[in-house]
Amino acid sequence: MQKLTVELGDRSYPIYIGAGLLKRTDLLPDFIKGKSVITVSNETVAPLYAETLNKSLEGFKASSVELPDGEVYKTLTVLDQIFTGMLENHCDRQTTLVALGGGVVGDMGGFAAASYQRGINFIQVPTTLLSMVDSSVGGKTGVNHPLGKNMIGAFHQPQCVVIDTETLDTLSDRELSAGIAEVLKYGFINDLKFLEWLEENMSLLLARDPEALAYAIYISCKHKAATVAADEREAGQRALLNLGHTFGHAIETGMGYGNWLHGEGVAAGTVMAAELSMKMGWISEADLSYVKHLFTLAKLPIEPPSELTADDYRLHMMRDKKTKDGVMNLILMHKLGECIQTSDYDAQAFQEVLERV
Amino acid sequence: MQKLTVELGDRSYPIYIGAGLLKRTDLLPDFIKGKSVITVSNETVAPLYAETLNKSLEGFKASSVELPDGEVYKTLTVLDQIFTGMLENHCDRQTTLVALGGGVVGDMGGFAAASYQRGINFIQVPTTLLSMVDSSVGGKTGVNHPLGKNMIGAFHQPQCVVIDTETLDTLSDRELSAGIAEVLKYGFINDLKFLEWLEENMSLLLARDPEALAYAIYISCKHKAATVAADEREAGQRALLNLGHTFGHAIETGMGYGNWLHGEGVAAGTVMAAELSMKMGWISEADLSYVKHLFTLAKLPIEPPSELTADDYRLHMMRDKKTKDGVMNLILMHKLGECIQTSDYDAQAFQEVLERV
Repeated sequence: MQKLTVELGDRSYPIYIGAGLLKRTDLLPDFIKGKSVITVSNETVAPLYAETLNKSLEGFKASSVELPDGEVYKTLTVLDQIFTGMLENHCDRQTTLVALGGGVVGDMGGFAAASYQRGINFIQVPTTLLSMVDSSVGGKTGVNHPLGKNMIGAFHQPQCVVIDTETLDTLSDRELSAGIAEVLKYGFINDLKFLEWLEENMSLLLARDPEALAYAIYISCKHKAATVAADEREAGQRALLNLGHTFGHAIETGMGYGNWLHGEGVAAGTVMAAELSMKMGWISEADLSYVKHLFTLAKLPIEPPSELTADDYRLHMMRDKKTKDGVMNLILMHKLGECIQTSDYDAQAFQEVLERV
Repeated sequence: MQKLTVELGDRSYPIYIGAGLLKRTDLLPDFIKGKSVITVSNETVAPLYAETLNKSLEGFKASSVELPDGEVYKTLTVLDQIFTGMLENHCDRQTTLVALGGGVVGDMGGFAAASYQRGINFIQVPTTLLSMVDSSVGGKTGVNHPLGKNMIGAFHQPQCVVIDTETLDTLSDRELSAGIAEVLKYGFINDLKFLEWLEENMSLLLARDPEALAYAIYISCKHKAATVAADEREAGQRALLNLGHTFGHAIETGMGYGNWLHGEGVAAGTVMAAELSMKMGWISEADLSYVKHLFTLAKLPIEPPSELTADDYRLHMMRDKKTKDGVMNLILMHKLGECIQTSDYDAQAFQEVLERV
């Protein structure tokens, strides 16, 4: 088992990474302060792992809420189902919520914990690669709105993150690839060496080699933890983690939640960001080609959907959380392996990227 | 104009109290950081005061959302209408939300500000006595759930609170009385002298004497600001502000939101808390009678509704936010003008209070 710490003063918390951690009944109880626990999971994950998890919760008053599975259910309406379950089971301010599942379960469980009785403790137990390397760490929680992804939410840090790499065995190939998009992201932002490692080891990752996966998760979480510790509320460098996300969210929202997986939108979106970066003269054609090559190796899309027009992108991107007083900020590649946040890009080049499809 | 400050370090903010403050166009702009503002109000208040408020917002990109009026609309579903309005009007993280209205508008507007893009600035402009003396100060925001009042929400402090006492001119007599319940509360908690002043000046308050109202609001806000500064997250003394609220919320929820006004529930609930305190031997029969006398002077109910059974109360009270690991904490009168939070009360006496009706 490996351990990382997200350093946030008195709100610091550990990330545990290892094979079979869900079976270890000594891990979770230390992070449960009160006498009761409620597990939030979904119809796909609960049948696979809830029973194992529950063995760690013996001695607590335990209850559970099971959500439908999919990004399309990451809504205020489904969030309300969590609150109903919590109230019916008499959860109080001392209850700890355990989010067992992928990014949707983690984001919604976290936001439910942030909002229930104005805030209770929670624990992240991510079961998809994407949630292990990104969404379960850092306290961003929330739900989507029909007009924009992740528009409603809260910063609310968990008590701990428990990553059992064995849960990846039941993940679909498509979901596994989607998670790799966020892993590659850390390389593009500021870790060229990691990018080279990923290129060399991509076939091992896709074959679910336990050691390769554990290493990729560890390095990703290390980057994420350092970024969150330096800039919890995204006043600056944390925004870099949104590489590919502004374009990607527009794809996800424009195509209807769940039709493109988040990681797929991020992949195509990162290629769009790289194209704009090339047009700005910041990266070379060879660099752009390398970006596409890596996503292709990971079996991820490098072309945005043909259904969306430039106006569709603009509409959704103007609602991006990085937009300030009407000015759209983008995360672009200043060079390969080094990203920046900027509003100082050529409007014509931007338009060309949006119109290319 | 009088000014109080809620001392919360770098999140400190002023409360301005005075007649005609809405007409002063120099007050609000100092508290708006970005270039855009969205006003959240309701169908009753907006026609009365939105135009006046808007004169302060010239030079900003201003938009508005109008909610239906009433506690029954303090729901996640109506909250979503605010988010839709914010997204349609391209509000971003720099937008300031102005909540113009009573407690429902302030609580929902505040929660929308807490959750929109994970948190934006907001300003409270309360227009009911109840929201002026209580809910607009201190950062408690949220919505109701069918199973419990204020169960979903966030702590989110405003940039400032602007109390224009002239807006009370359009308040109904019933709403005015409901507000006085929260004013009396401060006296019961720890200000016997204020209680005596209220007894002497109740008829002036009900006649909307501007000076009497301004004084009552000032003293109430002073108590509220001091309490919030000492205990923002309600780890201790802030809980005392819930005098009468545990019983009162049970009445409000049990009778259906909006049938009993919040202040009416608090009045009858405070009498129930006083009855239990008397049964515990902490206050005298004369004290209980004095409590009832004050609420009667304010034209508030001193009898709980006959429709609710002891089991109804228990069901709703067990969901109270002060319940810890199944133990129900109550705010009771240790003596007249001095309240305590305690779970150390006689179960039989408690049952008798619930069964009295």
